[in-house]
Amino acid sequence: MSTHARTSETGSRLPESRPDLVIEGGIALTMVHEAAPLENARIIVRGDRILEIQSGPKKGDLPPHAEILDAREGIIMPGLVNAHTHAAMTLFRGFADDLPLSTWLHQKIFPAEAKHLNEETVYWGALLACLEMIASGTTTFSDGYFFQDATIRAAHQAGLRAVVAQGVIDFPAPGVPDPKENLSNGRRFLERWIHFSDLITPGLFCHSPVTCSDDTLVQAMESSRSFSVPLQTHLSETAEEVAAVVRKTGVRPVRHLDRLGLLCEGLICAHAIHLDDEEITLLAKRGVKIVHVPESNMKLSSGVARVPDMVAKGLTIALGTDGCGSNNDLDLFKEMDSAAKLSKVFEMNPVSLDAFTVLKMATISGAKALGLEKDIGTLEPGKKADIIVVDIGSPHLVPLYNPFSSLVYSAMGSDVKHVMVNGRILYKDRRCLTLDALEIMSKVRKLCRGMTV
Amino acid sequence: MSTHARTSETGSRLPESRPDLVIEGGIALTMVHEAAPLENARIIVRGDRILEIQSGPKKGDLPPHAEILDAREGIIMPGLVNAHTHAAMTLFRGFADDLPLSTWLHQKIFPAEAKHLNEETVYWGALLACLEMIASGTTTFSDGYFFQDATIRAAHQAGLRAVVAQGVIDFPAPGVPDPKENLSNGRRFLERWIHFSDLITPGLFCHSPVTCSDDTLVQAMESSRSFSVPLQTHLSETAEEVAAVVRKTGVRPVRHLDRLGLLCEGLICAHAIHLDDEEITLLAKRGVKIVHVPESNMKLSSGVARVPDMVAKGLTIALGTDGCGSNNDLDLFKEMDSAAKLSKVFEMNPVSLDAFTVLKMATISGAKALGLEKDIGTLEPGKKADIIVVDIGSPHLVPLYNPFSSLVYSAMGSDVKHVMVNGRILYKDRRCLTLDALEIMSKVRKLCRGMTV
Repeated sequence: MSTHARTSETGSRLPESRPDLVIEGGIALTMVHEAAPLENARIIVRGDRILEIQSGPKKGDLPPHAEILDAREGIIMPGLVNAHTHAAMTLFRGFADDLPLSTWLHQKIFPAEAKHLNEETVYWGALLACLEMIASGTTTFSDGYFFQDATIRAAHQAGLRAVVAQGVIDFPAPGVPDPKENLSNGRRFLERWIHFSDLITPGLFCHSPVTCSDDTLVQAMESSRSFSVPLQTHLSETAEEVAAVVRKTGVRPVRHLDRLGLLCEGLICAHAIHLDDEEITLLAKRGVKIVHVPESNMKLSSGVARVPDMVAKGLTIALGTDGCGSNNDLDLFKEMDSAAKLSKVFEMNPVSLDAFTVLKMATISGAKALGLEKDIGTLEPGKKADIIVVDIGSPHLVPLYNPFSSLVYSAMGSDVKHVMVNGRILYKDRRCLTLDALEIMSKVRKLCRGMTV
Repeated sequence: MSTHARTSETGSRLPESRPDLVIEGGIALTMVHEAAPLENARIIVRGDRILEIQSGPKKGDLPPHAEILDAREGIIMPGLVNAHTHAAMTLFRGFADDLPLSTWLHQKIFPAEAKHLNEETVYWGALLACLEMIASGTTTFSDGYFFQDATIRAAHQAGLRAVVAQGVIDFPAPGVPDPKENLSNGRRFLERWIHFSDLITPGLFCHSPVTCSDDTLVQAMESSRSFSVPLQTHLSETAEEVAAVVRKTGVRPVRHLDRLGLLCEGLICAHAIHLDDEEITLLAKRGVKIVHVPESNMKLSSGVARVPDMVAKGLTIALGTDGCGSNNDLDLFKEMDSAAKLSKVFEMNPVSLDAFTVLKMATISGAKALGLEKDIGTLEPGKKADIIVVDIGSPHLVPLYNPFSSLVYSAMGSDVKHVMVNGRILYKDRRCLTLDALEIMSKVRKLCRGMTV
């Protein structure tokens, strides 16, 4: 955490005796500042961390008994960070599309969640999400939903790094029928998981300043601070939400949150669309983290976030896919492409959000938003080995003049070939080593057969 | 052609003796009107045409010696129609991104085209484009560029269906250094290729009403009519272009083209962004065909076409990717997703351009735009067998509540498993049978190594 470092970390570590891993060949994009691509790169991984990054002609011998991961005809880069999702909503992928917003939410999604979410469905939905994220190069995700014990179990089984936040809302919610229990339930969730694993950060997720009372918001932040974890919330996703907060409090949402003392470096705000200049300035001043969610914002007609204005003010802007109920996938490659193109046409400026800026949003800025930038988000010796290799041997990636541009404007999630998290290979030659893909897909298909509202 | 049917067609046909082909299993989307998906479908192909479409329990035996194409865990649908591209611009994929429009065009693309385009580079660039289009489910493309003999050779070798139009512009152009020769060169192109093959329709492509004189526009249309082929043009892609036409002619581009007698069912207009109500009404009245090119329009900050207004007026709206200099891929799956999402956020209406409407744009409306709707665009007995199978056995396509929605919002080009054009299998189990992928990628990489301006 950038604000409040966690003092104690335990969890499963790799056996010290494992041989080193070497990712060899290909072009490495370290994403460190403006560093140029490294040709013919070689990355040596010892245990859970990057030991050394080389490029050009080979220097010295490989470590003895090292396992080699072939990255020739590939781009080696930091794993992607999906900074806002609701993983188990894979269950509702394509369940309710092309509908008016109120129909979508009140007649489809909310009733379906109330009727069908439980420990088992969230577990399998989250496993499917992990599978999809691994297969498209995401190594860390930040999640807000209900029955989050199940999501932690899924992320742990997948081997992904994750911030998993328990939903807090002042309405009866899946798994929390009595809203009076939402905060105590949330605190117990933090207690239960705070020392579980290096890879998992538990957290709280306040649904929004409209659906959470002032008291709920304040207490959720207090709990988050006492556990040194970030607090997530939706912020100003729709014009209606902003109007509702103004009606209730007399001020716009950002000023309202500031009065409550919530604006700080440990607050992560997703969407952040309907902001005026003063709100952007205030968010920047307080170091609040923003997650841009362009495809969901487009699909639900929520609006277009003022990303270039926020970047100009120095805000940290991460990238997220949102849940599969409103996107309908967890593919950050598509999301990067959409983020860049949407900004260009909305600003009527083809220079807006260039490929490198967007790639930073999906890597180091995502890490910063989650308070994990000391460990992930770039390729640097000493950082955790969260690394992906993107295969550039397909027609749509030929020729390759500029790897940043190719990744954002031409690559697909399916170009990801290898995925490593914390020094462990989760995905090799497009096959997931930690999860049984056929079992998960089959189980989710069965669960979803009965999903009606 | 819908306006003026071609009277004589020859070209290579399949041997009459070839056994029937059966595409078996899976969900068939015929795209015929509002037809529901067919479960457990079986499509029998005889020669170059669809003989029969069955669904549900098997009826009767398979034709003797039939070759079976496995479509279980797949969606069977009409091949996609990319109604506007510049195929060989694959050579400039990622060559000049995130630049101001004038820099992109005048300091990068135009000089690069002038310096590097020739019969050989266009041939290999077009082959790469064909490879990419086949691998992402496109079976017909409509192209406008220079050195188009080479593009026809590439499309023919790939086995794709194509409308290939020779560029006409009143400036020195690649292969046509003297603009005085542009029309005679174009007519010779039509003569050379009009009887070449069932699969290839030659045509002309006027760059725009700004870069072509009135006389050039009128004569290009006369030549197109005399060969019963469509005429393509860019229309009102930028506000500057509209202003230039108004300055030159006193009226907006659509009225200008109407005064010249160009507006008719055989005119295909790409982009069509900056249109007023009167122009939309006039285009609809004349039966002009529109190609929506959302990703290029976003990336170049050209603007957002008024697609729902055009659909409401009954215009035929096809979908195109534009060239790889401004997209940067030829993937219609990404384009469909962007078309739907862009419309929703631009209109602030989540119901705008639903998945089924967008799929029609990429299939039957594309066929109509090119005057090929009697032969392609839907799955119907008697139509040409241009069919693709999309694999739905990947995590991002699970669950599957609604196949239309899954194809538009979740599928990727890389989910395409089999591709058939004119009854011939071009792509089977994700391997191209007609083109040598490694040779093409290697050749294009070599050619592009020297591409500087």
